[in-house]
Amino acid sequence: MSAARSVPLRRASPDDAPEIARLLVAFNAEFDEPAPPVDELAPRVAQLLDGGDTVIALAGDPMCGVAVMRFRSAIWSPARECYLAELYVAPSERGEGIGRALLTYALDVARGEGADYVDLNTAETDTAARALYESMGFSSTEHKPGGPMNIYYERVL
Amino acid sequence: MSAARSVPLRRASPDDAPEIARLLVAFNAEFDEPAPPVDELAPRVAQLLDGGDTVIALAGDPMCGVAVMRFRSAIWSPARECYLAELYVAPSERGEGIGRALLTYALDVARGEGADYVDLNTAETDTAARALYESMGFSSTEHKPGGPMNIYYERVL
Repeated sequence: MSAARSVPLRRASPDDAPEIARLLVAFNAEFDEPAPPVDELAPRVAQLLDGGDTVIALAGDPMCGVAVMRFRSAIWSPARECYLAELYVAPSERGEGIGRALLTYALDVARGEGADYVDLNTAETDTAARALYESMGFSSTEHKPGGPMNIYYERVL
Repeated sequence: MSAARSVPLRRASPDDAPEIARLLVAFNAEFDEPAPPVDELAPRVAQLLDGGDTVIALAGDPMCGVAVMRFRSAIWSPARECYLAELYVAPSERGEGIGRALLTYALDVARGEGADYVDLNTAETDTAARALYESMGFSSTEHKPGGPMNIYYERVL
């Protein structure tokens, strides 16, 4: 990895929603996931940012990275827990440590929000993302290294 | 699988919290996961049931199965999404279709709560759970059968 490029990191406000929506739609297009149009997603993002359970961390000016965090009360501890729903850096800005800086910042934000635990899911084949998560203390195995891997399942209702 | 045994299925109320806590602690003990004592977990469960984002489905009388659902507003649709945080049937009651009946009921409850999507995670080696989820329409691969598997990552903060 080349030397990290320093970019501004900050928490999003509802005013950032249109630009966040644009990045999230680009993210889904890159990974062949369906997404609503930007002008439908933007008010949704603004609503979530106003709703109390969502914090979005941003990197760059102009914005080139976004980390969407969802919070809820934990079951197993009196703290909150954080689900990292989306982490995205625009393709032209990759390889300069922006994802790592944004994730580091996002974890600090999550701690500040009272979370003591964070989880996420990613594709087996996304080796860059997996290397980043594993180098930052995330584990995909139960209990300890070498244990069985945890698999993420989903379905529409 | 032998013929399904019919058991009562219902939504939990906060009064059920002590018995739910007992089952959840037994669940974690079986899978070598840490858990707080039942008398610490019970008020937490009652609090979550009162908090608006948690629904717990129960099977059996006496209670032998528990499904803990957490809800939040979705990002990609105007609906809610459901995280199936825990699904447990007591060992002595397994092999009679109670897990399947409880999961079917839980998915109906989730639809009734306005969710259009549900996700969960489970260990690669838990073949009984994986077979149940896969037979009920859950997918662990991106986009379509044969795509890359989705891996679940977690860390403490």
